[in-house]
Amino acid sequence: MEFTFLGTSAGTPTRARNVSGLALCHSGPRPWYLVDCGEGTQHQLMRTRYSVMQVRAIFITHIHGDHIFGLPGLLTSASMLGRTEPLDIVAPIQVKRLIKTVLDNSDSSLSYPLNFIDSGAPGFHWQDKHFAVTNVALSHRVACRAYVFTERNLERQLLPDKLRADGIEPGPCWGELQQGKDVTLEDGRVLRSENYTHISRVARKLIVAGDNDTPALLADACNDCHVLIHEATYTQDVADRVGPWPQHSSAEQVARFAQQVRLPNLVLTHFSSRYQSGPGGAPHINQLAAEAMQHYRGQLFLARDFDTYRLEKDLSLSCVTTLTHSTS
Amino acid sequence: MEFTFLGTSAGTPTRARNVSGLALCHSGPRPWYLVDCGEGTQHQLMRTRYSVMQVRAIFITHIHGDHIFGLPGLLTSASMLGRTEPLDIVAPIQVKRLIKTVLDNSDSSLSYPLNFIDSGAPGFHWQDKHFAVTNVALSHRVACRAYVFTERNLERQLLPDKLRADGIEPGPCWGELQQGKDVTLEDGRVLRSENYTHISRVARKLIVAGDNDTPALLADACNDCHVLIHEATYTQDVADRVGPWPQHSSAEQVARFAQQVRLPNLVLTHFSSRYQSGPGGAPHINQLAAEAMQHYRGQLFLARDFDTYRLEKDLSLSCVTTLTHSTS
Repeated sequence: MEFTFLGTSAGTPTRARNVSGLALCHSGPRPWYLVDCGEGTQHQLMRTRYSVMQVRAIFITHIHGDHIFGLPGLLTSASMLGRTEPLDIVAPIQVKRLIKTVLDNSDSSLSYPLNFIDSGAPGFHWQDKHFAVTNVALSHRVACRAYVFTERNLERQLLPDKLRADGIEPGPCWGELQQGKDVTLEDGRVLRSENYTHISRVARKLIVAGDNDTPALLADACNDCHVLIHEATYTQDVADRVGPWPQHSSAEQVARFAQQVRLPNLVLTHFSSRYQSGPGGAPHINQLAAEAMQHYRGQLFLARDFDTYRLEKDLSLSCVTTLTHSTS
Repeated sequence: MEFTFLGTSAGTPTRARNVSGLALCHSGPRPWYLVDCGEGTQHQLMRTRYSVMQVRAIFITHIHGDHIFGLPGLLTSASMLGRTEPLDIVAPIQVKRLIKTVLDNSDSSLSYPLNFIDSGAPGFHWQDKHFAVTNVALSHRVACRAYVFTERNLERQLLPDKLRADGIEPGPCWGELQQGKDVTLEDGRVLRSENYTHISRVARKLIVAGDNDTPALLADACNDCHVLIHEATYTQDVADRVGPWPQHSSAEQVARFAQQVRLPNLVLTHFSSRYQSGPGGAPHINQLAAEAMQHYRGQLFLARDFDTYRLEKDLSLSCVTTLTHSTS
């Protein structure tokens, strides 16, 4: 499983960081999944291996512009490039209205079906062959959700001793069983794949949270979760100065929560544009890392645009970015 | 007068060219004027000296997404940065609906007044102290316009002999007259500025056209025009293959027109993404220049993103770009 940050700035873009967008894939970039789509997401994608032609579904955490204003351009560009594959869009209902009005008032139409799925529907659940996706309501100025991605269809290993003990000799049916399919023998016996195979590892589970001032809302979802991607808009001192109104989290707040639930990997993103990476008078982005590290003992990352992370089958997470672009 | 291209690609962005946007100013970047606002315009602006805080008016040629999808992000970013100055937006009425729906469905509001002006109103005319702006209807798949910018308030030179002949000695009233103000003397006489000053040069006039398959619609407006910025989406062979449906111009078509009306300066832009600047199998952007040069003997330019042009008081046009950014 891999994910790539397309934008890591809160509210407005900066020269180094675009507004929110995250590309996720299970095994290679076809298909892939997009979480949030700030303005310029289609531009960022041109610098990655992900194409608007192969995105399977878009998950929107909430309706703020820095998370959705890239949708009209991305959707119509895919159309101009000739996409025909249906595209699922999981989002608050306002996004459906917004897209319809924008298309209607810009002489636009799409060359492919857009399936709108209400992210706020009770018991929301989405899945394809790679992932099962659920969501968790967060606390923000508008309805906002975290998406929980759990991989599906893990590779099975045959139990040859058990097969032979039941008189089933090697043959094509072994292959079927190994692929998770049940088999009916000539003598009428039905062999259940789950009885003759086992899965030797844990399903990888990753949470991509939207804007949120109460990380504890993710406590249940973080059970058996391997990576949490969460906003950390401010350091605590700035959060205190700004006051509670924006309903964002500080680095300290998220770090304390992650420590409490013993989260193995935490990736912070969605930084206020006041934090900079270069020299100069502005607060340095490292202040966010330093603050988080005081409260969290797991593996901590601060996301940068175009950083790519790989979550291995052994549940280790690493940043595997090869910089092939300029990051001025 | 200066103008800077923020995007020069038709339909979809490429890695080297964003979709349409042009920044224009009279004397320095405060205030400045924006023509069209494709997605990513606010991102491009961060690499220029123009700020969303100082844009005086936005002129939209037509409603296609590559000319307007940057509006919601640009408008709300100006708000987040604390803009209070009113902003005029001259556009087809659909743009008003689009912006209202997008703001309403993204929990957004603006910290400044947005004055919507219908670009299709009969006898449309806009002006501030620097420019008088009119428009011309073009021929495209949707209603589309060219904006004609003519500078106002040209510097006046006093006629000292005439002043002295009328018994008006040097004093503060000379300064008032030179600034274009009429003066009432103590003896009750009213001195008209226009009678005691003269303007020694021609007002500079520039046309920024939207998408258009019939350049001849601009024949009247091109009278006494010093620069025409016009789309040249294809070379003629590609235009013939594509057919008339998209209603764009070829380089040849625009060049023939410019030659016919004896236009001194022609800047082509809005190139199909099939034309590339690098080596490789794709048609080269220079094919558009070569084709235009066969039919036009004036000064010809092909726009590139971030290219800045200066139209001097002597009516000469030059590209003054200093590349301070990477153009991969």
